[in-house]
Amino acid sequence: MSNPSILILPGDGIGPEVMAEVRKIITWFGDKRDLAFDVSEDLVGGAAYDVHGKPLADETMDKAQNVDAVLLGAVGGPKYDDLDFSVKPERGLLRLRKEMDLYSNLRPAQCFDALADFSSLKKDIVAGLDIMIVRELTSGVYFGEPRGIFEEGNERVGINTQRYTESEIERAARSAFELAMRRNKKLCSMEKANVMESGILWREVVTRVAADYPEVELSHMYADNGAMQLVRAPKQFDVILTDNLFGDILSDCAAMLTGSLGMLPSASLGAPMANGRPKALYEPVHGSAPDIAGQGKANPIACILSFAMALRYSFDQGAEADRLEAAVEKVLADGHRTADLLGEEGVSPISTSEMGDVIVAAL
Amino acid sequence: MSNPSILILPGDGIGPEVMAEVRKIITWFGDKRDLAFDVSEDLVGGAAYDVHGKPLADETMDKAQNVDAVLLGAVGGPKYDDLDFSVKPERGLLRLRKEMDLYSNLRPAQCFDALADFSSLKKDIVAGLDIMIVRELTSGVYFGEPRGIFEEGNERVGINTQRYTESEIERAARSAFELAMRRNKKLCSMEKANVMESGILWREVVTRVAADYPEVELSHMYADNGAMQLVRAPKQFDVILTDNLFGDILSDCAAMLTGSLGMLPSASLGAPMANGRPKALYEPVHGSAPDIAGQGKANPIACILSFAMALRYSFDQGAEADRLEAAVEKVLADGHRTADLLGEEGVSPISTSEMGDVIVAAL
Ligand SMILES: CC(C)[C@H](C(=O)O)[C@@H](O)C(=O)O
Ligand SMILES: CC(C)[C@H](C(=O)O)[C@@H](O)C(=O)O
Repeated sequence: MSNPSILILPGDGIGPEVMAEVRKIITWFGDKRDLAFDVSEDLVGGAAYDVHGKPLADETMDKAQNVDAVLLGAVGGPKYDDLDFSVKPERGLLRLRKEMDLYSNLRPAQCFDALADFSSLKKDIVAGLDIMIVRELTSGVYFGEPRGIFEEGNERVGINTQRYTESEIERAARSAFELAMRRNKKLCSMEKANVMESGILWREVVTRVAADYPEVELSHMYADNGAMQLVRAPKQFDVILTDNLFGDILSDCAAMLTGSLGMLPSASLGAPMANGRPKALYEPVHGSAPDIAGQGKANPIACILSFAMALRYSFDQGAEADRLEAAVEKVLADGHRTADLLGEEGVSPISTSEMGDVIVAAL
Repeated sequence: MSNPSILILPGDGIGPEVMAEVRKIITWFGDKRDLAFDVSEDLVGGAAYDVHGKPLADETMDKAQNVDAVLLGAVGGPKYDDLDFSVKPERGLLRLRKEMDLYSNLRPAQCFDALADFSSLKKDIVAGLDIMIVRELTSGVYFGEPRGIFEEGNERVGINTQRYTESEIERAARSAFELAMRRNKKLCSMEKANVMESGILWREVVTRVAADYPEVELSHMYADNGAMQLVRAPKQFDVILTDNLFGDILSDCAAMLTGSLGMLPSASLGAPMANGRPKALYEPVHGSAPDIAGQGKANPIACILSFAMALRYSFDQGAEADRLEAAVEKVLADGHRTADLLGEEGVSPISTSEMGDVIVAAL
């Protein structure tokens, strides 16, 4: 049997640097745990635009469709700010999400014990925080038609369309309920059903799906209140389910509660492929951070933990994922810090590459 | 010359209770400062539905159009949860906003010195916080067509439309720049121009309007990053400009940073009327809080400070608004607390009505 395959798309900014550290981890699992992967690499975002004139070449799209998992670094940077909307770096990422049909975006917001002081929130509010946000990722206002800028009378009008079918809501909801079953069996669904009809349908479908998961305690919350409650008392939540746009904002808000954005991974999952594995793309929640790119300052942990999510969700290696996560916790407990995690007295930062090395050593 | 007119719409839940305290304040200004108002009162929200079968009677709408300012308490409650979308309490409020064309919603997020400990954020992150969020309030996904739940093939689809014309963006932007000129001359505009064409047009128009305000330092931020930055370091902001839906979420997030939701007022302003005053509606940011309604526990300060905003923005009485705000600061400094503001040792709560009384006394 051939090895499982991984396509690495480092992308822009700090993407290549953090991905180099993930490569060390992948190599370690091949050498020491008999978990070898066939790894290939390609371009996405600005890096792809520079070569192909678009942020994702069709051949790269094909490759992504035919591997067991995609690992992505980050896309975007000031160099590409003035590009036309249709070829901006982000379009490469959005094309991957859409064409791979990755409808379930899992974004853990977890506060690491060793880093609780980094949060702008009081320690008792965030210590031990462990939320999972499930964001629908292939529909809503990100992809709805009509969209664009149109002439109307003497002026222009900008239009986007929020659009959700019952089946789109249902499959995202099911994945959230499944996750809740494996966690604390509490699910909170967020929308604006008091203002938007798409939110009414959302609430109705989620409530219907709940009948198949009688053990899960379901609640509904308006998204504005959701943002408030995340800031006020985030530990009230276990799994949060929400749509593409609310999920974008609420998951970033939740991520920042932990105080350590450089630590947070994500998984974007689709339907099972012929081999039973889900279509999958893993990426850190942080962006391409062009201001520190190429300086060895980036924190590779979010990207490394994204690979841990790949071990868990694509390769059914939960124990190995635990091992990798434990190694990360250990290096943090030992006081190793990249530049983004400074602040304690007497700690000096280690580089991106040194962080990769100490994690390998801890494994 | 006749007195300026105010229409009071107490609404649901704690609305009537907090509004009773505002009445005391209004009376005080008439008696002691020679600032008499013609005050009338009517129904909105569930209270209107109970009487008229809809959340805002046409006659009430007419009255609102013909007074100098509307003061609204709050709308909504569990009793009305199962009503049809078209007659839910919120529709009364949305109709007022839309038909009065109140395009500029001012939401201060201010941290009161005496209450900085109430925030879930660290004190140094929020002490002295003073942000003004300008939220566009009459357009975007709240009102765009088409909207609804439609049949499509074998299933239903929920649709809402995000829609902004250049002139809608421009007038909201102007009001934000005007405010920035009277504050610290820093304006940050938030959208998702990386994903939504309506955001591209938004950014373009705001940038164009900026040419008329060369003293104001303008920046742009994606709304997801905006949510993060609000949590990470809110004091980086002075005025934030954003659309109806992002504004709903971001202003609630910002409000919660202050830790004292019961304290925050808002003003919704439209175009100048024949008498030069803007169309205007003032309301607290908090909701109808049905769980504590009728118990004398509600904090009337947000509603009282909404009246202070009316003094400033509708009646050109900035000095009197300052006086009222100072009275509120004083009662807080003196240790008076309603039940929502408890937590300090040895402080016992005063009632809604007592809070109104001590503020009148402080005036
Ligand atoms: C880069 C951008 C298109 C993307 C999004 O808006 O989804 C990002 O913010 C994210 O959350 O992954
Ligand atoms: C009550 C509701 C319709 C309203 C809104 O969504 O605008 C509220 O959340 C607000 O922010 O004023």
